[in-house]
Amino acid sequence: MPNPTAAMLVIGDEILSGRTRDANMYFLAGELTKHGIDLGEVRIVSDDSAAIISAVQALSAGFDHVFTSGGIGPTHDDITADCISQAFGVQIDVRDDARSLLAAHYKTTGKELNEARLRMARIPDGASLIDNPVSVAPGFTLGNVHVMAGVPMVFQAMVASVLPGLTGGQPMLSQTLRVHRGEGDIAPMLGALAARYGDLSIGCYPFQQDGAFGANIVIRGTEGMRIDAAMTQLAKELDL
Amino acid sequence: MPNPTAAMLVIGDEILSGRTRDANMYFLAGELTKHGIDLGEVRIVSDDSAAIISAVQALSAGFDHVFTSGGIGPTHDDITADCISQAFGVQIDVRDDARSLLAAHYKTTGKELNEARLRMARIPDGASLIDNPVSVAPGFTLGNVHVMAGVPMVFQAMVASVLPGLTGGQPMLSQTLRVHRGEGDIAPMLGALAARYGDLSIGCYPFQQDGAFGANIVIRGTEGMRIDAAMTQLAKELDL
Repeated sequence: MPNPTAAMLVIGDEILSGRTRDANMYFLAGELTKHGIDLGEVRIVSDDSAAIISAVQALSAGFDHVFTSGGIGPTHDDITADCISQAFGVQIDVRDDARSLLAAHYKTTGKELNEARLRMARIPDGASLIDNPVSVAPGFTLGNVHVMAGVPMVFQAMVASVLPGLTGGQPMLSQTLRVHRGEGDIAPMLGALAARYGDLSIGCYPFQQDGAFGANIVIRGTEGMRIDAAMTQLAKELDL
Repeated sequence: MPNPTAAMLVIGDEILSGRTRDANMYFLAGELTKHGIDLGEVRIVSDDSAAIISAVQALSAGFDHVFTSGGIGPTHDDITADCISQAFGVQIDVRDDARSLLAAHYKTTGKELNEARLRMARIPDGASLIDNPVSVAPGFTLGNVHVMAGVPMVFQAMVASVLPGLTGGQPMLSQTLRVHRGEGDIAPMLGALAARYGDLSIGCYPFQQDGAFGANIVIRGTEGMRIDAAMTQLAKELDL
């Protein structure tokens, strides 16, 4: 059975303007690979309702799971929750369970649960909450879309809350061989290897170091013995 | 007149598997911002023809410019050039001008211009070449799509070849104020500020440091004096 598939949607002008370098995509990609869920696409869109709604609908239809990052805080530019509810055509309002979480939290910290903070208790109808052990304000899952915060520490905690509940597949395994030969030299042999091992994914990622060209050859698959076999053959053909 | 818009398409399984952390997106985002071109969306797709073709067509139709990264080397998994030609419905073959570049280069390095390397001279009909001062094998521009290599050093050199030829808009300027107050405290004031300065983009990006919450407030726009005015008012309201 093929692994479940996933897409990620990163919401935030700060990534697109080059101000912030995204960290959540890199983290999620690694976690999904370990869990046996294949990340097939990532989109990054700005804080724009139409862009968010259309991306959510496209990705939700095309993949088993969608993970979103960003835009669920208390400020005016946090519009993700409203967009998700529109994408699914459901109502959204402050929900009692989310409000209780926030009320208890702000009571202990002595901060006011003002109107802005109460925005973080707005949850679309039919969604289930995602636990946030870092800063309490919850994420939520609606349909196959998991809506999480953009702050990396919170995002990572929410991923840890969500992932164990999702059916995973076989973890994708990989082995890497670093060779100091130009891609163009090894390309024919890699093509033949890829044709022979059709069940594996064989990638070649060139690098340049101190003026010399080399490449990392990465063989991926779910069966370690097949990867071993392909890697052994490759090393032999490269006289390594 | 609004700034030209752009999208980026990153092609590569190595990003989606979490093996490699993308660097090109962060670089391009910063360069486009300086050049006055607004990056509106980024997509990352795997080395899959259907996914690449459909993303190229969608982004080419939706934005003034599309920049792609990855998949134009000599190995079997480098399928970007063929996908671009299919997306535009044009033929692709080894082209004399590109072959000449490669032949001259490999002559000086003493390497063979074999069949694999000749793949890098496959250019879609009607495309113009993008200069590659690092490793010679060219990128190309077809319609509004600029096709570039994935190796960061080469990608950056190609961006430097392409950008000066594109009409830019007004560079987006920004100022950041770092405050050690929770987002929820400052949200109402930020919302009011955003409403008053509708020509500016006001973002709030929370962080957590040593257990305390804070936020970076970023005000963006093309007129420095307006940003100054908004920032001055913000500082006053925050008693800074």
